[in-house]
Amino acid sequence: MSGADLTVRALPPLPEVRPGDDLAALLTAAHPAPFPDDAVLVVSHKVVSKAEGAVVRLADVVPSPRARELARELDKDPAVVEVVLGQTREVVRARRGVLICRTHHGFVAAHAGVDGSNVAAGSVVTLPVDPDASARRLRDALPGRPAVVIADSFGRPWRHGQAEVAIGCAGLVALDDRRGQADREGRELLATQIAIADHVAGAADLARLKDDGRPAVLVTGLARWRTDEHGPGAATLRRAADEDLFGAA
Amino acid sequence: MSGADLTVRALPPLPEVRPGDDLAALLTAAHPAPFPDDAVLVVSHKVVSKAEGAVVRLADVVPSPRARELARELDKDPAVVEVVLGQTREVVRARRGVLICRTHHGFVAAHAGVDGSNVAAGSVVTLPVDPDASARRLRDALPGRPAVVIADSFGRPWRHGQAEVAIGCAGLVALDDRRGQADREGRELLATQIAIADHVAGAADLARLKDDGRPAVLVTGLARWRTDEHGPGAATLRRAADEDLFGAA
Repeated sequence: MSGADLTVRALPPLPEVRPGDDLAALLTAAHPAPFPDDAVLVVSHKVVSKAEGAVVRLADVVPSPRARELARELDKDPAVVEVVLGQTREVVRARRGVLICRTHHGFVAAHAGVDGSNVAAGSVVTLPVDPDASARRLRDALPGRPAVVIADSFGRPWRHGQAEVAIGCAGLVALDDRRGQADREGRELLATQIAIADHVAGAADLARLKDDGRPAVLVTGLARWRTDEHGPGAATLRRAADEDLFGAA
Repeated sequence: MSGADLTVRALPPLPEVRPGDDLAALLTAAHPAPFPDDAVLVVSHKVVSKAEGAVVRLADVVPSPRARELARELDKDPAVVEVVLGQTREVVRARRGVLICRTHHGFVAAHAGVDGSNVAAGSVVTLPVDPDASARRLRDALPGRPAVVIADSFGRPWRHGQAEVAIGCAGLVALDDRRGQADREGRELLATQIAIADHVAGAADLARLKDDGRPAVLVTGLARWRTDEHGPGAATLRRAADEDLFGAA
């Protein structure tokens, strides 16, 4: 049992991605050689959302009374709050100008992942409708079928700073579930499920500068986590609403 | 502004580490060449704790009445609960057999980071008393003074799986604070603090198998996050108890 060497390298910048663009073609152009056998391609969710048309012009949004009220409380744009609520199954918390929301997918994220940075003025980007499906489609359209991770940066309770997490995934074991296995002394390991896909997303982020126009990062050396099937995706990383913090699944 | 290539490689296995061992000497023996200029050495907290003697023999522990009561509720060993409470400033949650604790350092972790796996039978390991100080000492004792990250795996609310985080750090920017900077369109970035040291800890974990006896991983390509001074360490990643989930600092 030996460790593997990883390499992490950002692909060259992509052109600005617009709704309807063929993201797989843009990525293939940015990496003309076939992707290596053990490759995982980590793609920022924002270009996936843009290509899929998950972009909302705020001028087209009619805020509901609830959105207007929350916007007043939080000192935010009512149109943005309306978009956030449209992505939201449950508002987990609304304080200090931030809405923490459980999205329709089941992610818990500030502003339900709605983001206005690096988007045309007057527009915001929402999360892909089904990021695991996006990852599967992208994977099937890329030469060599690299595993695909779609990443976003989420805040965390108890710790400062945002961390990259996998919101979509195909062809990679997202969660290594080793519960029931033994340690070197033969005792059962406790609570050992490792968030592989989140670690991959975080590693990828180290190889690029935020907003440097390089939304895709190639990670090699992860052959043991690669799967031929697309697999259950990043959905395995979402904790259901009725499970406690740190509670057992 | 271009991204950097990262490489991530586990050092060979270390011998079993015992209280009083010179961890820097063991690591230097495992990596005879000087560490490269842009190196970050990620070390599992467990070997740091063991070398520092942060190991408790359960037979020597006298559980308090509160520890006995909690142990009954949670179906746990009263001696282990006593050790956990000794590490704890505040019990955040006690359910489903798990104690979520805020440690004296200010970390929020299951069982206050007390761990019985890969330790001699009848003993548990606690977190280092001051992991940032441990990182600084280790760094100063290693040839080439690589940056040092001391890592542990923490559970997260809302997401399944444990993720590696930095509990100690020296010579690396742990938190990249870009609040107030602008996006490519010139608009202010919101909530952009990136947990660099946590990403590094997660990347390192991908290069080793849990319990494969390789507690140290060398990451290169992080020159832009390296600092000559030790810096404020992983303390910058701890959110104070009186700050809300996702609340502003």
